[in-house]
Amino acid sequence: MRIFMVALFSVGLCWGEGTEGCKPSKLNIPGAHYPCVYPDGRATFHVVAPDAHQVQIRVVGQGFDMAKEADGAWTVTTTPLVVGFHYYTLVVDGVRVADPSSRTFFGSGWENSGIEIPEPPDVDYYLPKDVPHGQVSQRWYHSQVTGKWRRCYVYTPPDYDAGKARYPVLYLLHGWGEDETGWHTQGHADFILDNLIAAQKAKPMIVVMDNLNAVKPGEDGRIFTSLGRLPPPRPATPPAEGGQSGAPPVRRGGLAGFTGATFTEMMFADLIPMIERTYRVLPGRENRAMAGLSMGGMQTFLTTLANLDQFAYIGGFSGSTGGRGGAFDPKTSNNGVFADAAAFNKKVKVLFLGIGSMEGPGAKNFSDQLTKADIKNVYFESPGTAHEWLTWRRCLRDFAARLFK
Amino acid sequence: MRIFMVALFSVGLCWGEGTEGCKPSKLNIPGAHYPCVYPDGRATFHVVAPDAHQVQIRVVGQGFDMAKEADGAWTVTTTPLVVGFHYYTLVVDGVRVADPSSRTFFGSGWENSGIEIPEPPDVDYYLPKDVPHGQVSQRWYHSQVTGKWRRCYVYTPPDYDAGKARYPVLYLLHGWGEDETGWHTQGHADFILDNLIAAQKAKPMIVVMDNLNAVKPGEDGRIFTSLGRLPPPRPATPPAEGGQSGAPPVRRGGLAGFTGATFTEMMFADLIPMIERTYRVLPGRENRAMAGLSMGGMQTFLTTLANLDQFAYIGGFSGSTGGRGGAFDPKTSNNGVFADAAAFNKKVKVLFLGIGSMEGPGAKNFSDQLTKADIKNVYFESPGTAHEWLTWRRCLRDFAARLFK
Repeated sequence: MRIFMVALFSVGLCWGEGTEGCKPSKLNIPGAHYPCVYPDGRATFHVVAPDAHQVQIRVVGQGFDMAKEADGAWTVTTTPLVVGFHYYTLVVDGVRVADPSSRTFFGSGWENSGIEIPEPPDVDYYLPKDVPHGQVSQRWYHSQVTGKWRRCYVYTPPDYDAGKARYPVLYLLHGWGEDETGWHTQGHADFILDNLIAAQKAKPMIVVMDNLNAVKPGEDGRIFTSLGRLPPPRPATPPAEGGQSGAPPVRRGGLAGFTGATFTEMMFADLIPMIERTYRVLPGRENRAMAGLSMGGMQTFLTTLANLDQFAYIGGFSGSTGGRGGAFDPKTSNNGVFADAAAFNKKVKVLFLGIGSMEGPGAKNFSDQLTKADIKNVYFESPGTAHEWLTWRRCLRDFAARLFK
Repeated sequence: MRIFMVALFSVGLCWGEGTEGCKPSKLNIPGAHYPCVYPDGRATFHVVAPDAHQVQIRVVGQGFDMAKEADGAWTVTTTPLVVGFHYYTLVVDGVRVADPSSRTFFGSGWENSGIEIPEPPDVDYYLPKDVPHGQVSQRWYHSQVTGKWRRCYVYTPPDYDAGKARYPVLYLLHGWGEDETGWHTQGHADFILDNLIAAQKAKPMIVVMDNLNAVKPGEDGRIFTSLGRLPPPRPATPPAEGGQSGAPPVRRGGLAGFTGATFTEMMFADLIPMIERTYRVLPGRENRAMAGLSMGGMQTFLTTLANLDQFAYIGGFSGSTGGRGGAFDPKTSNNGVFADAAAFNKKVKVLFLGIGSMEGPGAKNFSDQLTKADIKNVYFESPGTAHEWLTWRRCLRDFAARLFK
């Protein structure tokens, strides 16, 4: 037994009994009762930290100070949180870390904790159900453009392995600070597609989830990790404590250097050829869609609007307004791609602008401007959600059902 | 731009310039200079924590106190660390957490940080190379035995998709506190197989990486999360600070209740049938191998030795001695499966006992006892490594090359 035990050790986990009516978050590590979620969306967090002086939970843009109990545990119950997946962090004496009771999820450039506030029980479009399941495969490939090995995840629909059919392809991008794991881990893209396909609401399709970070040798990659901020050698001050976790510390114009050009080049030189020689793919632009969330939506607009001969379906989820570059002018924006509305409408089968209702009017304004310029587009608003994954799950469900028809 | 920024915030990451000659660990989050590793295996860690009172790094069973610098950053340089992958943790004022500068890896029941101390440049058997690559697929399936959805990862060899051939299958298990992600994330099983197959050192095979935790409704699952310790409602004291991180806090006999019976039942009722109806698999025991590390090695011995009609290849990596249950007696141990050596040797093509040289003599003693009882077995010792992933990568390389021949 001795040998077997060498690697084991205990950690300061939260073994407290669940508070009455408070169910452990399904994103907890096995055996952790906390955080737990009440039916009304309040969540109780619990951390053992007898020697700490100040402990806080930061979730959905709010900070919740934890209170120390006699046994050295700190605990807090939040106000009701909006449904869906939320990144959250634990702050121990000023240091922001992941809560050891939670699984971690790559977002904002590091491994955050996550908590899921359940939707009503009848909302199950992103949950595993008793329907045929596709699979998500990890695919490594070498990029000539970046000179590096890259990893993407590829969803193939339920019948892919057993059959010989060819399928259309959706290229689907994550947001800033996330990576190629986001869409199936936080977003449940695989279950969303499984359920849509089983209900015959979406065509069976391949979904390619790549990493939007693409940097050539010698190119400055910091825009992807820091949105253009120059990281000082060592920060003289810790991150501000009082602000909302969602408050942007970046300066205006921090994305000014972002052109998406290297990703676009890599996509055409490396990614699409690899996918098309590896999978049974239907050819041509009418079988190719691209979408992304937030910065991935920006990338989608930059890539597709400059290459309409390659894509017939375009989706921006909480990121569609970023592709315009300054004030919108249908005659000149995006090199005039919108100037001939009839020609654009003939080429682009779906132009989809999705947004959470709590995110502000930017996407709606853009949609209205497009409509005014006679550009057909779909405006989709997720009720009651912000710049978070539930908005993007809902966007994907709506968008995927419109593709390849 | 406003909408796009909502989800962004800064964290207390380590943006320091790399110390001369110290290369960022390849397991860091993008853009993080620390931890970095010197050519001699020393590592420098760096955390911004101006308000903390005590900060420590715990890695390879040692605690390294960090020193506070004038700018509020804490830093420490370790003694030389052994090559390979190491879990590590950050301790901020007594709270063990993951270092926000590192990617996280599920081990010891939670999301640890990880650091990779590189082997010499010519050691590349677990790195991606310019050879044909297989893929690792995430496969969800519903278990009748546990009543739950389960996830496994399945490696299919490079020619699988393009061809029609059938392949033998290796079922490969992680260790205690880890999960089905371990073998491809920490272990690089996919690259190890890609490279072996390309060099014609291993037969092309399918590798199924499942989760060894399997609990029936109503069954006590705590053995998997706590090795049988009954977690107190709330621990009165924090984890001991002075001890080695590798020191076992569990009591002797903590695994006494572990029989592996539910996993074995689930494997035959749910997992193997799902694999064999989903993938192009060669039939029969001579095309089926099972191996595991640590607790997964125990599970392997428990499952296979009771079902030799189902498996011809058996591997225990740092876990092989756990399967015996008490003192070894070739006539009676494991229900007498070793009693007829000639019959055993005819059935079992490879019985593999792997161990790190720093783990103690248990596996060697077991191998010697088997040899004395005329049971053919392979004893494999990884030089200079302990109960860690480099031992298990080396075990897999050696074991996989012996299979299905």
